Amino acid sequence: MTLSFGDWMKAVQQQVEVDLAEFLPPASKQPARLHEAMRYTTLGGGKRVRPLLVHAAGALFAADPRTLARAACAVEMIHVYSLVHDDMPCMDDDALRRGKPTVHVAYDEATALLVGDALQSQAFDVLAGADSVPPARLVAMLRVLAHAAGAAGMCGGQAIDLDSVGLQLTLEQLEQMHQLKTGALLRASVVLGALAGAELDAETTRALDAYARAIGLAFQVVDDVLDATADSATLGKTAGKDAAANKPTYVSILGLEPSKALAEQLRRDAHAALEGFGPAAQRLRELADLIVQRQA
Amino acid sequence: MTLSFGDWMKAVQQQVEVDLAEFLPPASKQPARLHEAMRYTTLGGGKRVRPLLVHAAGALFAADPRTLARAACAVEMIHVYSLVHDDMPCMDDDALRRGKPTVHVAYDEATALLVGDALQSQAFDVLAGADSVPPARLVAMLRVLAHAAGAAGMCGGQAIDLDSVGLQLTLEQLEQMHQLKTGALLRASVVLGALAGAELDAETTRALDAYARAIGLAFQVVDDVLDATADSATLGKTAGKDAAANKPTYVSILGLEPSKALAEQLRRDAHAALEGFGPAAQRLRELADLIVQRQA
Repeated sequence: MTLSFGDWMKAVQQQVEVDLAEFLPPASKQPARLHEAMRYTTLGGGKRVRPLLVHAAGALFAADPRTLARAACAVEMIHVYSLVHDDMPCMDDDALRRGKPTVHVAYDEATALLVGDALQSQAFDVLAGADSVPPARLVAMLRVLAHAAGAAGMCGGQAIDLDSVGLQLTLEQLEQMHQLKTGALLRASVVLGALAGAELDAETTRALDAYARAIGLAFQVVDDVLDATADSATLGKTAGKDAAANKPTYVSILGLEPSKALAEQLRRDAHAALEGFGPAAQRLRELADLIVQRQA
Repeated sequence: MTLSFGDWMKAVQQQVEVDLAEFLPPASKQPARLHEAMRYTTLGGGKRVRPLLVHAAGALFAADPRTLARAACAVEMIHVYSLVHDDMPCMDDDALRRGKPTVHVAYDEATALLVGDALQSQAFDVLAGADSVPPARLVAMLRVLAHAAGAAGMCGGQAIDLDSVGLQLTLEQLEQMHQLKTGALLRASVVLGALAGAELDAETTRALDAYARAIGLAFQVVDDVLDATADSATLGKTAGKDAAANKPTYVSILGLEPSKALAEQLRRDAHAALEGFGPAAQRLRELADLIVQRQA
């Protein structure tokens, strides 16, 4: 580990940008407007937390960089498609994302719908093209991605989120919703990065699950804290929306300071889960710190 | 071949219904409303043309029935998700599908969006679970499905369709649009069914492509003929919509009788493409006839 965490992160983010640009269909090719909108919403923005997790977990077992590149772009495409659909008028009706007009604003609603749909297909296409990993393990990776994206993961969490607007959720219900809505794809990022390098035994899987569970929850707790305290310009999206929409949040259930304390506890849980991995897990530890300490 | 074509078709359709019911998440499980809506729109309707093609092509190389079941359900889930999203107000704004209220009418728009998204993930999940086919071939099958569903296939065709409303397309442009919009998934159905049974050499692939191209176009030509001549009750969806929306169709470009003649020519092309396969291709031949001769 010669690079500082900051330099490593920048290097990965730049590589992910290059890889995404390569794995997205070219804007010069028909249907140009669809391709252009897919590139508009995917490129040039975002913290790339999921690709960072893929690459950090890949370091555990010295995974092939080409496999990591495809896994990282696949999870990011799933994430970006979910944002595009989430922002549509029939969902959150948001006009600003990553500091830019959302797809249905910059283009139109029908295009936003198709962009999300096509990005999801593209994610599976890109991952299925990882030909330097043994096919049986690649099939396992594709199942991890599909499971995390669908009704048992992200889409299921969004459905619970929809159903819970205006309801008084318990802390357990809120946690379960977020474990599906954002936690499932964060966990998939960690597992895909590790699987890119090796088959996982039960103990390794348990440790990675505990890590992913902790950072997944921490991510959401911090999101709620930032939504309650930061401004839209810093966030690159509309702040204070959850409160305005009467959505249950950690801050509304626990209060602001207890929420901050919970995030810090989850950061320590994430570190504890990685104890058996030694120095190879350094980037995963640093990412847990980043997720809790981020300001946007 | 002991079953008549009609009996074979009924048997496959019933099996597909059972398989879909098994491969969809149970309505008894949370998030129940999402699962219920996924089942509402997928089960109990539809001609199951794509699953029939999967099973018919599977007969070419005596494919494992469990692999065929998963491939058939996967293509049908992709097809159904595309209908759910297509029917939404920002696309075709249709209230009736397969004789039932569309998902955004029976539920709401946000649910329709999530149902489509979750069905797409589920399709890849179901196909990736086909563990009786060698993993390398399964990866190839997953790539075929992803490619057919995404920007290079179905979504791309829908984008061209959107861009062409009100335009005067040439016959070639109309054909290219439909080859992506509906042809890509029909071709994928044939290829997946064949791949479920064997690796495909170049000659076999060419023959299946020629067959799939012919039935894909025939399917659309007949759709346009029916849209211009049948009523909504027979179709189970709103008739005359394309003309009302000023969308280019085969009937609007070629006229009604030449469109019927083209469909018949494409049926003969489909038969010609299958010449080398002998009796094993009987169901594929019968499906080509069905696609051209159907009344809804």
